[in-house]
Amino acid sequence: MTATHTTRSTDSEGTTMTRIAFIGLGIMGSPMAVHLQNAGHQVTGYNRSPEKTRPLVEAGGTAATSVAEAVADADVVALMVPDSPDVAEVLTGEGGVLDSAKSGALIIDFSTIRPDVTVELAEQARAKGFRMIDAPVSGGEAGAKNAALSIMVGGSEEDFEAARPVLDVVGKTVVHVGPTGSGQTVKAANQLIVAGNIGLLAEAIVFLEAYGVDTAAAVQVLGGGLAGSAVLNQKAEKMLDRSFEPGFRIDLHHKDLGIVTSAAREAGVTIPLGAVVAQLMQAARAGGDGSLDHSALFRTVARLSGRDS
Amino acid sequence: MTATHTTRSTDSEGTTMTRIAFIGLGIMGSPMAVHLQNAGHQVTGYNRSPEKTRPLVEAGGTAATSVAEAVADADVVALMVPDSPDVAEVLTGEGGVLDSAKSGALIIDFSTIRPDVTVELAEQARAKGFRMIDAPVSGGEAGAKNAALSIMVGGSEEDFEAARPVLDVVGKTVVHVGPTGSGQTVKAANQLIVAGNIGLLAEAIVFLEAYGVDTAAAVQVLGGGLAGSAVLNQKAEKMLDRSFEPGFRIDLHHKDLGIVTSAAREAGVTIPLGAVVAQLMQAARAGGDGSLDHSALFRTVARLSGRDS
Repeated sequence: MTATHTTRSTDSEGTTMTRIAFIGLGIMGSPMAVHLQNAGHQVTGYNRSPEKTRPLVEAGGTAATSVAEAVADADVVALMVPDSPDVAEVLTGEGGVLDSAKSGALIIDFSTIRPDVTVELAEQARAKGFRMIDAPVSGGEAGAKNAALSIMVGGSEEDFEAARPVLDVVGKTVVHVGPTGSGQTVKAANQLIVAGNIGLLAEAIVFLEAYGVDTAAAVQVLGGGLAGSAVLNQKAEKMLDRSFEPGFRIDLHHKDLGIVTSAAREAGVTIPLGAVVAQLMQAARAGGDGSLDHSALFRTVARLSGRDS
Repeated sequence: MTATHTTRSTDSEGTTMTRIAFIGLGIMGSPMAVHLQNAGHQVTGYNRSPEKTRPLVEAGGTAATSVAEAVADADVVALMVPDSPDVAEVLTGEGGVLDSAKSGALIIDFSTIRPDVTVELAEQARAKGFRMIDAPVSGGEAGAKNAALSIMVGGSEEDFEAARPVLDVVGKTVVHVGPTGSGQTVKAANQLIVAGNIGLLAEAIVFLEAYGVDTAAAVQVLGGGLAGSAVLNQKAEKMLDRSFEPGFRIDLHHKDLGIVTSAAREAGVTIPLGAVVAQLMQAARAGGDGSLDHSALFRTVARLSGRDS
């Protein structure tokens, strides 16, 4: 073990304890931080809106009033913030992680951001003596609450292994998919598939409603065959009921489809279905549905057919 | 029970036995007919290429040399043929079912055809004293072999109940979705979703390969989250291995997307993703891949990016 590895202490019950700073305690970050605290780690949380630190504090964690304060003693710095500029600001901004954390700390970025930005930020982090992995997640609010997230990890094998005990607390399917940036690339593919599956399900349901078939029965039989999917299981009922509280907001999925579109273009990869669903998501946002769950893409698809949304 | 209901006799073991004619003993029809024979029914099969009757005969069924001969004594007439004109020919052609079967026989059309054609044919059948349901299936060759098909049924409640003992032999998820034609409408929606999910998975895998991530690991983690689907479970490995033996042929899925496109247009329903995947499937066929499994849509998507297919 080199000097740069995570320092751990052992509490009275023999649990290995890590000092973790958790930056970004939103819908996803808050339950993840609480799980880490409950697993015997010592978590210090920071969030721009300070009231979001409450669940962590109630679980025995600590609230910090700045990024610098949160990361000062941390062995692991976890991030769960909305977009590429937010991660850049938290890491490289004044009083940010690279200025304030202990050299050798392991940065785990759970955020979904551009793969090329991840690569650039990880290089800057390494140049200052930090380790960093990209570890975006899938599974939504329910996955975060149930500690059942899928986590797609990019980085060195060594850093992945060092992060594993932390990742295993919040994730059920934790997979190392390649070097730095690969986690974000796989997450981009994930968001492409999910958006497309939502769009297809919406088209199918508008079509079925237009023909007056028993849509609840249809969804049941569709789910039993090759058309079955996690999206169908989790989103069909929302569409049938026109119940679109988030969940994962269209604004965020729109941001993610921007990442997919740029990354595909950058690699010379043609994604005709991805391009269309990115346009539909854009239209959903332009139509004022940005703060609804991404299943509300149904409303845009229904409107395109002049039907009840 | 009215005189038009299915006549049943009881064999020495007390099993209720129905005389079933099964027209169309291809990849799907053959194992379905064998299951019905094995379940204690008396099945007479007909197929244009007569050698396809062999598995049924080996199971104790009978081979007929014409549709008229197959249906002469049948209480139930099952069809599993490729396309709308085939169903029309078998039912209304010279020596076809409506000419040759006993009045009151129950026609179960397992084929995937146009909903409007189904409605028209069912009207003709009823005018001649027959009962008819549309009962297209999903689940593919494996579903047929394992008697685990999803069956989406259109027709009257009474005819659905009469057909149920036959449907339950070959299906696992058997659902009545509405009046005549509704089964075909739901099947069209099924084929829309399946084609789209295949296209999205292909785009995602081409994208991941372009970035050099560990695709097997990526598929594993994608399958664990909201991107998970039956298509991902059954088709991702075929794409990674470039192994595209059918399975369900692109030619047939292309035919089905023609049904989806017409039916959506007829109902004034706009399906942007459906339109794009119909074009991709058309391109796959034009590119010479019509006889490959529909997962070979990957080859077309890969070619669009100038990548190895």
